[in-house]
Amino acid sequence: MPLTGELLIGHSTRRGTNGEVFGLDAATGEKLQPGFGGATLDDLEQAASLAAAAFRPYRETSLEARAKFLEAIAQNILDIGDELIERCVKESGLPRGRIEGERGRTVGQLRLFANVVRDGGFIGARIDPAMPDRTPLPRPDLRLRQIGVGPVAVFGASNFPLAFSVAGGDTASALAAGCPVIVKAHSAHPGTSELVGRAVQRAVKESEMPEGTFSLLFDSGRSIGQGLVADHRIKAAGFTGSRAGGTALMKIAASRPEPIPVYAEMSSINPVLLFPGALAARGEAIGKAFVGALTMGAGQFCTNPGLILAVDGDSLNGFVEGAKAALASAPAATMLTPGIHKAYCEGVSRLKSHSQVKMLGEGTVGERFQGQAALFSTTSEDFLKHPELQEEVFGSSSLIVRCKDNDDLGRVLDKLEGQLTIALHLEASDHDAARRFMPVLEEKAGRVLVNGFGTGVEVGHAMVHGGPYPATSDGRTTSVGSLAIARFLRPVSYQDVPGDLLPPALSDENPFGIQRKTDGK
Amino acid sequence: MPLTGELLIGHSTRRGTNGEVFGLDAATGEKLQPGFGGATLDDLEQAASLAAAAFRPYRETSLEARAKFLEAIAQNILDIGDELIERCVKESGLPRGRIEGERGRTVGQLRLFANVVRDGGFIGARIDPAMPDRTPLPRPDLRLRQIGVGPVAVFGASNFPLAFSVAGGDTASALAAGCPVIVKAHSAHPGTSELVGRAVQRAVKESEMPEGTFSLLFDSGRSIGQGLVADHRIKAAGFTGSRAGGTALMKIAASRPEPIPVYAEMSSINPVLLFPGALAARGEAIGKAFVGALTMGAGQFCTNPGLILAVDGDSLNGFVEGAKAALASAPAATMLTPGIHKAYCEGVSRLKSHSQVKMLGEGTVGERFQGQAALFSTTSEDFLKHPELQEEVFGSSSLIVRCKDNDDLGRVLDKLEGQLTIALHLEASDHDAARRFMPVLEEKAGRVLVNGFGTGVEVGHAMVHGGPYPATSDGRTTSVGSLAIARFLRPVSYQDVPGDLLPPALSDENPFGIQRKTDGK
Repeated sequence: MPLTGELLIGHSTRRGTNGEVFGLDAATGEKLQPGFGGATLDDLEQAASLAAAAFRPYRETSLEARAKFLEAIAQNILDIGDELIERCVKESGLPRGRIEGERGRTVGQLRLFANVVRDGGFIGARIDPAMPDRTPLPRPDLRLRQIGVGPVAVFGASNFPLAFSVAGGDTASALAAGCPVIVKAHSAHPGTSELVGRAVQRAVKESEMPEGTFSLLFDSGRSIGQGLVADHRIKAAGFTGSRAGGTALMKIAASRPEPIPVYAEMSSINPVLLFPGALAARGEAIGKAFVGALTMGAGQFCTNPGLILAVDGDSLNGFVEGAKAALASAPAATMLTPGIHKAYCEGVSRLKSHSQVKMLGEGTVGERFQGQAALFSTTSEDFLKHPELQEEVFGSSSLIVRCKDNDDLGRVLDKLEGQLTIALHLEASDHDAARRFMPVLEEKAGRVLVNGFGTGVEVGHAMVHGGPYPATSDGRTTSVGSLAIARFLRPVSYQDVPGDLLPPALSDENPFGIQRKTDGK
Repeated sequence: MPLTGELLIGHSTRRGTNGEVFGLDAATGEKLQPGFGGATLDDLEQAASLAAAAFRPYRETSLEARAKFLEAIAQNILDIGDELIERCVKESGLPRGRIEGERGRTVGQLRLFANVVRDGGFIGARIDPAMPDRTPLPRPDLRLRQIGVGPVAVFGASNFPLAFSVAGGDTASALAAGCPVIVKAHSAHPGTSELVGRAVQRAVKESEMPEGTFSLLFDSGRSIGQGLVADHRIKAAGFTGSRAGGTALMKIAASRPEPIPVYAEMSSINPVLLFPGALAARGEAIGKAFVGALTMGAGQFCTNPGLILAVDGDSLNGFVEGAKAALASAPAATMLTPGIHKAYCEGVSRLKSHSQVKMLGEGTVGERFQGQAALFSTTSEDFLKHPELQEEVFGSSSLIVRCKDNDDLGRVLDKLEGQLTIALHLEASDHDAARRFMPVLEEKAGRVLVNGFGTGVEVGHAMVHGGPYPATSDGRTTSVGSLAIARFLRPVSYQDVPGDLLPPALSDENPFGIQRKTDGK
């Protein structure tokens, strides 16, 4: 079926009449057909009203039915086949291998959450049995479960057109939690969004889920995104994007008559700490690997290493030389959108003209919308004096901060904002020095990793893709991995509720066979 | 040791110089000695700086040491003896039995959290072992734990001078989570606060916890409370009080350069649904029991039943007659402060003069600062037309809403704001009718209970004392029970971190012997 440019509202489709959104060929800047009609506030109203109506029946679907629904979405996405890959490559400028990998990740996430749902542990069932003979007062029968918060707004992300967009992490975890989802498609990849959206819409029908379980809206301006977060039926929002965009949504959410949580992943420069033992043993190799991580996906990973911290000295030279050599042959790569490319070029220019920053090297020059990698250096003193040097330059630009000694390095760490990841490169001889920094690293980042770079984000149970502000708006949660389901849940307690009125997960029969804590055990 | 009126800042005490706070004898309005010096911003600065310094060593104390510390606080509170009870009775106007019970509850909470700490389940340890041979990419070793968010500001509550104040639920759960605490004492019970504060301070010293683990500040105005929530070292706040107070703190927290969570428990009228079978079988008895719950603690429980919903008809009359009879002999009771008494009288006056509200009965007239119970009724139609009738009147006032039928009752439920509790009174014959309402009740309240009233809040594992806005600012958590520890935690992931740099809870040795999930199992 060819792309139609239609909105997907519950079971139906319709042409949005509020302006038009076009995908662009990221490599050439050319408009791609068709145009996607922007949603009106009436469309939003209908999607929200359907989502609200779907919430009750959807959240009480059986665990098996919900798991199968998630698996059906995954299968439907695979079934789109090459059309999805081709459109996504064109809209994102990302290479085919990367998009195929991202599709695998997206499908894997949906299947992971299907298993999370089947397991039922996310329900957090707890039973404190009655103690009718307790003195001075009998203890009532108390049972607790987690239920979905309500309909969730998900914002597609430019840099993960599949894994963090229409059927990405937030959608998968919200649907797993029992929450209907309304996606605001990212304007950078409307065609990809429609294709995936139709796969979800078909799964809703095929799995006989309530109609409003899923809708997809295109937004020709900002009214739909803002309107979604402001809508009283929406109870949480997931966003990956710029700091300005994320904080704007946080403000709307906080100003509602009923404030709601916004899970915004916004800004992270993912510091890399290089220790002397590691530098001495394999500085050049680390430098080369670093450039690989820096330029991966045109530097457009949220976990891109934008800051290198090391004690200055001879041992740092090997790293710098290795990085410079790798950089010199690092090919420029097409960026996600002409706008992102422009912002990247401006960020690099600012660093180039910064009086306290020295350019160490650049990657090869590319085509019109390709980002050229860039590596800069400064001193800890200047870094601390110029807070603007902590601002993320989205793309493959990084800054080395030369510190005088470990105390100086500690001072820089203390001044860092919240991060998604902090990486350490270590040999055994560096452990004592590293141990001292572990506490501040845990406090600044969602993930601390050793002898690698943050760019690979494993989808598992022990992953945290999150971190203190401004890395995210809410460091208490993760957006990747099975724990992500927690962000869309809230606890409800049932006291002395008769068995036939209890939800199945809490009934004596325990028909889903889930694990439950009895008296905290 | 007599009361000194001093601030407790870490290990030290000092006289605040920013005005004075006096406790009042709740029964007479007379000033109680001594005056308590209000903290200056310098005092706040010192407490915050000590708390920040204490965070790292405190959060890495062993589980056993932290558990013993919580138990030491509990024992020190008991050791104060009668002096605490007497001062607290005087400052709160609550009867001795209630305050003794509340002390037991406070001590019980601290001991519960000691066991929660020992158990270690709150750490949420997860290990996804490395898979070096996985293709196409090896899987790294990933380990996850929950750590404390950082120093926490706790606001004492007027209505629970022990269980929700200096060493109350928020303090106990924050300390259990590994977070230092700065308490802003409630001005209604400064003497009680100092006594309990000194018990905590002594436990910090005796247990050799870091000095800044606990501080207690008095605030002669609002600068300290507001300054605490605005301070960059404070990472979360717990508050129980008015909607105006809670939303003011939420605003401050959301406007910080780094926004933080505020857990504010604010406003709930705790609807009670009476079903026909129950009314027919025991309407009068329910009416009598209702008045008992309504007037308990002068109606100043957060879970006080302020709204009765029932289908109008003969069967409701028994309830009304039972309630009226009980009310006629319900003694007036001293309210927490003259200010709260005044606000209560004004709220009752507003209802008395409301054109669409009918007064059904009043309790006996009391002394100067005693609240007189009051029961009103209105129709569902008028209730829906007048949103102001949903506003909490803090004290023993309640409103019966007469509905036409179950559909009408459903419409009223749909329009309710978020609640801490919703209670149902049922016989078996009512289950079918009740089943229909369960979904909306779960969505509106943190706790749904049957054949009782919300006023007894069991401290256990399956309790939720929370609920959707405005009952609380964050319905994803509870302030009572072992699950309350979750509000002060955030997850951190460790990737390929060598064993000697891992925290004990995640090391292969597992020295605390805690439960951990391996590959999600």
